[in-house]
Amino acid sequence: MTPRLEATHDHACLIVHGPDRPGIVAAVTALVTRIGGNIVTLDQYSDNPEGGEFFQRVVFHRPHLEAALPAVEADLDETLGPFGMTWRLTDQSIPKRMAILASTSDHCLLELLWRHRRGELPVTIPMVISNHTNTAEDVRSFGIPFFHVPAHGPDKTAAEARLVELLGGNVDFVVLARYMQILSDSFLEEVGVPIINIHHSFLPAFIGAAPYRKAKERGVKLIGATSHYVTEDLDEGPIIEQDVARVSHAMTAADLQARGAYVERAVLSRAVQWHAEDRVIRHGNHTIVFA
Amino acid sequence: MTPRLEATHDHACLIVHGPDRPGIVAAVTALVTRIGGNIVTLDQYSDNPEGGEFFQRVVFHRPHLEAALPAVEADLDETLGPFGMTWRLTDQSIPKRMAILASTSDHCLLELLWRHRRGELPVTIPMVISNHTNTAEDVRSFGIPFFHVPAHGPDKTAAEARLVELLGGNVDFVVLARYMQILSDSFLEEVGVPIINIHHSFLPAFIGAAPYRKAKERGVKLIGATSHYVTEDLDEGPIIEQDVARVSHAMTAADLQARGAYVERAVLSRAVQWHAEDRVIRHGNHTIVFA
Amino acid sequence: MTPRLEATHDHACLIVHGPDRPGIVAAVTALVTRIGGNIVTLDQYSDNPEGGEFFQRVVFHRPHLEAALPAVEADLDETLGPFGMTWRLTDQSIPKRMAILASTSDHCLLELLWRHRRGELPVTIPMVISNHTNTAEDVRSFGIPFFHVPAHGPDKTAAEARLVELLGGNVDFVVLARYMQILSDSFLEEVGVPIINIHHSFLPAFIGAAPYRKAKERGVKLIGATSHYVTEDLDEGPIIEQDVARVSHAMTAADLQARGAYVERAVLSRAVQWHAEDRVIRHGNHTIVFA
Amino acid sequence: MTPRLEATHDHACLIVHGPDRPGIVAAVTALVTRIGGNIVTLDQYSDNPEGGEFFQRVVFHRPHLEAALPAVEADLDETLGPFGMTWRLTDQSIPKRMAILASTSDHCLLELLWRHRRGELPVTIPMVISNHTNTAEDVRSFGIPFFHVPAHGPDKTAAEARLVELLGGNVDFVVLARYMQILSDSFLEEVGVPIINIHHSFLPAFIGAAPYRKAKERGVKLIGATSHYVTEDLDEGPIIEQDVARVSHAMTAADLQARGAYVERAVLSRAVQWHAEDRVIRHGNHTIVFA
Repeated sequence: MTPRLEATHDHACLIVHGPDRPGIVAAVTALVTRIGGNIVTLDQYSDNPEGGEFFQRVVFHRPHLEAALPAVEADLDETLGPFGMTWRLTDQSIPKRMAILASTSDHCLLELLWRHRRGELPVTIPMVISNHTNTAEDVRSFGIPFFHVPAHGPDKTAAEARLVELLGGNVDFVVLARYMQILSDSFLEEVGVPIINIHHSFLPAFIGAAPYRKAKERGVKLIGATSHYVTEDLDEGPIIEQDVARVSHAMTAADLQARGAYVERAVLSRAVQWHAEDRVIRHGNHTIVFA
Repeated sequence: MTPRLEATHDHACLIVHGPDRPGIVAAVTALVTRIGGNIVTLDQYSDNPEGGEFFQRVVFHRPHLEAALPAVEADLDETLGPFGMTWRLTDQSIPKRMAILASTSDHCLLELLWRHRRGELPVTIPMVISNHTNTAEDVRSFGIPFFHVPAHGPDKTAAEARLVELLGGNVDFVVLARYMQILSDSFLEEVGVPIINIHHSFLPAFIGAAPYRKAKERGVKLIGATSHYVTEDLDEGPIIEQDVARVSHAMTAADLQARGAYVERAVLSRAVQWHAEDRVIRHGNHTIVFA
Repeated sequence: MTPRLEATHDHACLIVHGPDRPGIVAAVTALVTRIGGNIVTLDQYSDNPEGGEFFQRVVFHRPHLEAALPAVEADLDETLGPFGMTWRLTDQSIPKRMAILASTSDHCLLELLWRHRRGELPVTIPMVISNHTNTAEDVRSFGIPFFHVPAHGPDKTAAEARLVELLGGNVDFVVLARYMQILSDSFLEEVGVPIINIHHSFLPAFIGAAPYRKAKERGVKLIGATSHYVTEDLDEGPIIEQDVARVSHAMTAADLQARGAYVERAVLSRAVQWHAEDRVIRHGNHTIVFA
Repeated sequence: MTPRLEATHDHACLIVHGPDRPGIVAAVTALVTRIGGNIVTLDQYSDNPEGGEFFQRVVFHRPHLEAALPAVEADLDETLGPFGMTWRLTDQSIPKRMAILASTSDHCLLELLWRHRRGELPVTIPMVISNHTNTAEDVRSFGIPFFHVPAHGPDKTAAEARLVELLGGNVDFVVLARYMQILSDSFLEEVGVPIINIHHSFLPAFIGAAPYRKAKERGVKLIGATSHYVTEDLDEGPIIEQDVARVSHAMTAADLQARGAYVERAVLSRAVQWHAEDRVIRHGNHTIVFA
């Protein structure tokens, strides 16, 4: 039986996207009212008031939401279709299923597990997978299943096959919590759910490996972290969130890494929360974040 | 003839406030559509979804706005009145008229004049008034009239009478840009327009005079500034914006003051801009800021 | 046998304090050289170059430090005594023994345990004590002893006696990681080691209980946290560190509390680290922090 | 006659640089004492305690400094030479002579002029040079000479020759306050003084032209500014200071530029102040900043 979140009982989130035109906000809000919903929050964005793209996120309360969903969805299709709008409706009381992939570093992983236990992330965590075993005990102490999928050697085919086997059908999105393996294009396609990564630099600065060493070499005065959706172009996917921390000449590359860990865990946590709450809309290589 | 802002030609800002009830967002957006408006931005807030207060700000584009205003206002009255809602509609192409009151310090004053010249503040500045003369030349170099209203001695009656004379009917709001005089209750009443102050501390810490000295004595590690609406209760009015800066044990009270000046000018500028753009709604002793 | 930190083997930290006078920096650095030390870092501060107080912190490397300590200390006495200077010398390879007192909230407690496990806090943690039992399992999973000392009812005499019994002679300082009990003056005296607290507001704003509720009522735009040494005057002790986070009108008091937890754990962690590294010097009701 | 700063009368700043070795801090502080100086602040840094480079900055008060300088400098040569150390001694009461080069943008230029007038920058400003004339009146209202040096067309030889003519022998350093012209290698050589630039991005991200447009295209969530010394490698010189500001998907490239202007002026001002106070040491392509 699907677990449910009490706090968001009978709450739905509607995302609407399409060509901007006069009256579209009013049309959507009228629609929400017609289907019995009371608007809790509403955000909208148009990238160009004349001939641009329009994005709207509406959270509404609708008694007996579950039973009404089929009718609501039919109405959405009928109302928005003629305007070329696409839409996505989610029952906010159903937590998304999130898998975490990790390697030896535990700071991002534990932060997510701990925030989840505090009730701050509206997700379930069916599994944590790592190519190392050092975090197994910690993960299981949170009551979360841990799976070890080694990824030795240059050929990752077996490892990725095992990942697909574990993830397939079981999760709604995947978080790479400092998972230090490059995933193949075919893996991305097979998994078929959004994958969120945390990169340990202020992208697009210091793209690729060893960003803290590069930051030290360049003598920057701030280091950063970037959470983004994974695409086929490494470190080039749509950015969800970024933040920085001040550093000084006196810090070594190892100091930067230690300091950066705190930025990474904060940035990834915010990105995961916003994704889980349907606050992030992908559009081309950008994100609209209604946070 | 009233000056007009090109960028916001035919744009109106509607603020709606009243008891929260189902369908209110939809009702207002439908109304905007009915009167020929296309929604540019929309923000809303309810302080309690069950029986709370509801606040909405809608900016919409409406061709031939000026001519249509009487009809639009009649419609608003008719539509919103029955629900016990109050509303306020402003033509965004008409800049608010802002007076600045200053004393010897120039950092907040010059920042406002400079941002205004850059076109970042949608206001006109009919006058700057100071109880000192040191900034007169600077002010006039911006093409702004400067008036000197001395405020010596304990009896401020004459000074306040002169202020009322200058301000009366000529301004939509007043900014105290480090104006170091306490204004009487009767003055506030006679002026009758909102007054925005900048207090040089992170209120409610270090309320009253000499906050940087008090901050030094208490040994705080951050100093702050607070912009708020002036009420009869000194330093107790609704807060619009606040910010802080890091300080250390090695800084003297004078150092804190010098550092704090940069926080003050930034905080006051944001507060003034948001007020000028009708982004701030007062409610009791709070503000809702749709920034 | 005393545990030792490898990274700071043969490193000593010398804190010197007394009346400022010409040549004092040179005198201390010459002294360090004479006793065979090589200066790693040096910080100094004078609160008034003419007739003020002088503070210096020198970290130096000295081969065979442990064996040389008695001779070094005799030299310090002889050299600094005549100038009315007090001094404190610590072997940095000996971690301070830190006890943590907690209640039901786990965010500050777990953050300290986790940073300790990462090797970022140069301390040992002989015990965690709580007046609740909910964190016992977590604490013990870090390999740290957990003691439950209930503190029901208005009379805390028995509870404090039990605390003194556990702490007495076993710890070098105590951290109150959201320990929601007021400690008596006699307890502070009996324990006789520094006690570091985290207060969930930007002191001196919202002193006392329920600061997040008070912050909501006052309508502030930033919330904060303050770590300070505990003195007989509640919430009035010397401030070690502070930080803030931005909030909005839309957040409830509970939201402020949830957001504030992340500020609290960061502020307390920094304060604890700086204290453990002998970077904090108390002087009157202030701190000098050489961070 | 050279202008003098009252506040730093008889204060000298000594920068020492060379191979790290035991006792070097003590040797320098003893030297300062021997020449009659009383240390006001002292900072040091070694990039590697074993065989690395050592950097020290000492500010000391020395009565009758001016008369004593020749003797002091002879002592420094004699003491530090044998250890292979280089040194630089400046009389802090003599303000550095700073030229500002600007184009049409005024935000960085006016910020520097205004901070200078407040007495926050220990410099004199013998001239402002621009390839446009729009800021002439503002500059002259500060009592600063303004020179117009047009830089039309691809051949900058004449313009650079005119710059060299104006700057030659008259200034100690040059600030490019959003001067939108690339300077030739031969110009850099002929001018022969440090040149500080402000780049309108968080380098090394968005190197080169139009960084705000590139930032918008990449969808970053923070924008930044970087102040650095100009070298022959465009945008690759040693970084002095950086900072960032948060942006959102809703901001256009023009919005980013407007928001970024405030980061630029703050970052450049800090870099200029630190340089003017001899707090910045160049080493390879890095800076050590004792701020």
